Amino acid sequence: MLLESGPRLGMVGGGQLARMSAAPASALGIEFWVLAAHADESAAQVVQHVMLGSHENVEDLRDFAASVDVMTFDHEHVPPDHLRQLQAMGVAVRPGPDALIFAQDKLRMRQMLTEAGLRCPAWAQVWSAADVEHFAQSNGWPVVLKTSRGGYDGKGVWVIEHLDQVQQVLETSLPPDAVWLVEAHVRFTRELCAQVARSPHGQAVAYPVVQTMQRDGVCAEVISPAPDLDPERAVSAQAMALHIADLLDVTGMLAVEMFDDGEHLYVNELAMRPHNSGHWSIDGSVTSQFENHLRAVLDLPLGSPRALAPYAVMVNILGGDVGDLYSAYRHVLARDPGIKVHLYGKAVRPGRKVGHVTCIGDDLPSLLERARHAADYFSGTIDH
Amino acid sequence: MLLESGPRLGMVGGGQLARMSAAPASALGIEFWVLAAHADESAAQVVQHVMLGSHENVEDLRDFAASVDVMTFDHEHVPPDHLRQLQAMGVAVRPGPDALIFAQDKLRMRQMLTEAGLRCPAWAQVWSAADVEHFAQSNGWPVVLKTSRGGYDGKGVWVIEHLDQVQQVLETSLPPDAVWLVEAHVRFTRELCAQVARSPHGQAVAYPVVQTMQRDGVCAEVISPAPDLDPERAVSAQAMALHIADLLDVTGMLAVEMFDDGEHLYVNELAMRPHNSGHWSIDGSVTSQFENHLRAVLDLPLGSPRALAPYAVMVNILGGDVGDLYSAYRHVLARDPGIKVHLYGKAVRPGRKVGHVTCIGDDLPSLLERARHAADYFSGTIDH
Repeated sequence: MLLESGPRLGMVGGGQLARMSAAPASALGIEFWVLAAHADESAAQVVQHVMLGSHENVEDLRDFAASVDVMTFDHEHVPPDHLRQLQAMGVAVRPGPDALIFAQDKLRMRQMLTEAGLRCPAWAQVWSAADVEHFAQSNGWPVVLKTSRGGYDGKGVWVIEHLDQVQQVLETSLPPDAVWLVEAHVRFTRELCAQVARSPHGQAVAYPVVQTMQRDGVCAEVISPAPDLDPERAVSAQAMALHIADLLDVTGMLAVEMFDDGEHLYVNELAMRPHNSGHWSIDGSVTSQFENHLRAVLDLPLGSPRALAPYAVMVNILGGDVGDLYSAYRHVLARDPGIKVHLYGKAVRPGRKVGHVTCIGDDLPSLLERARHAADYFSGTIDH
Repeated sequence: MLLESGPRLGMVGGGQLARMSAAPASALGIEFWVLAAHADESAAQVVQHVMLGSHENVEDLRDFAASVDVMTFDHEHVPPDHLRQLQAMGVAVRPGPDALIFAQDKLRMRQMLTEAGLRCPAWAQVWSAADVEHFAQSNGWPVVLKTSRGGYDGKGVWVIEHLDQVQQVLETSLPPDAVWLVEAHVRFTRELCAQVARSPHGQAVAYPVVQTMQRDGVCAEVISPAPDLDPERAVSAQAMALHIADLLDVTGMLAVEMFDDGEHLYVNELAMRPHNSGHWSIDGSVTSQFENHLRAVLDLPLGSPRALAPYAVMVNILGGDVGDLYSAYRHVLARDPGIKVHLYGKAVRPGRKVGHVTCIGDDLPSLLERARHAADYFSGTIDH
């Protein structure tokens, strides 16, 4: 440790969220460790302190914990019992397992939010096609079937139009400890996301509420702030996220994904880590979500989430036919000296998130055109 | 290599400039290597690919060159003959030794700029106190004595008020290959710095001209852009830097430090790498000097140097009595959620550059107060 009394921070998971956390850790002079499954994972390629191991193996987690003072996560999939063992060893686990469970288990999340009076889509636990039919009789078709655990990026979620599709989905094997949930299909006009950072002693900051666009269940684009969002609704979305962070005792970043049907906001999903919805903040705000996640889990005072420009647009780069992303630079960077490119060092596979681009400025249509063009060029869907 | 045809970039030197280059290398998906003298050097603490070795040892440089496709520098002190050997091996050395010599050797630099008709302080090579006296008879006292090689941060530079001080300075042992220069002491009203990035195929961009304030020969503060600088003078400073970059075939960042006496601009020093005068650009511009240095030496299209706010203020954190910089965070970050802190992971020694802080916004006096307060608090010269 070079800063005499500075803590060592460990992040479980070596994906792009850990990779993008490394830059603010370096700037703040924080010794940053990553527990990665493989040496070629996104974060393991760039950070100095890498330990190889599995987030599901309690021995690996213990070894990792012995190297760090505070542990946090680039994904939500670490078993809570493992985390409790680490806490018993004296490791500061942030967010803790009692908070993280609500990002791991959608049943627990729906129960908690419903008890707290926070608006969610109508929902029920189901065991059979008959249960789903019963739910649909009250709430109408289509419905959404979900596994309570193990889903991400559209996986573990099915939009069901007719009863005769239900049985086949229910025959999908469930992840460990998972159950089936059915939810009403909210006829949303758009999806929003409210992100907050919260520290152990309770300080919190709220980022501008963003509009997210999904494609095939995967985040495709984010506009910050959400265009034409009534200021009162924006504040109520931020207040809901702050309320949830406090209710669940979240430490670090919390993302609350919401459906907006033009009348109400419904909580869709929670994530307790930096989130795709906040990647714009690296280039578009005073303090990125990655820096504020580190500051929050270290219980340091939080940084300003203020935007640097009227709008920021983030578009994900999804893998296409072209394996060589580097070759796109000559076109993309020459066409647009103002674009910010982030590549994650991941091998290209069709549909896989391999990077993102961000533009900031005041002319939203132009920002959208520029960011989409760059992302499409990297993906290979356009070639000029 | 994870990006199939992306080059591997190596930086010789493991200091804070290499450390701050790692973040944009990671964002751009560039495999980034550092040749560091010790494993605890600033950059070696944070980057994955570290080779230990000396920048003065040609074997070490050859080993390093074998791991990378393009080589660049975090300082100017690599012997040119070593670099020519690497070039002969097929390594792209950027900037090349024929450019770098003008940042390594102040005699060569003064000769070249004078031949090109670019304004410098009056100067002469000297061998004796009598030579200095002769120069002062034409140019007046005080004069500035300099070693042509090996100086940095005020080292190797003496302001001489009287003839009787000269002999003692001339008895200082010279670095290898160095000679003595004497220069007129320009009665400047302020110091400016113009930074440009230039790529091998000749594309160049110019950053806003900044005002720098030195203390004891060390950069203390930078204001971007230089306040109240006549736009025509700003453009002429940028044009001079672009001219020098082209004249010397510089690749990467070039910093031209200038004296402004209210009438003319005089070239003081050159640096062919990211420079302390441009640290503000990390938080204050669309494309930081570190990103544009990488883009330039990789011959990628350059990014916009546009500022994100009307003013940026950077203040260096100099080592003081307090070894534990981390403990300052609670005060500094709580007082000012908008400040950006960069610590370099260097052990604190009095007067040593151990980090910097940046504020951006539109109210210059307030930005100066905030940044100075934070830096002074880290240094321990104030405690509240």
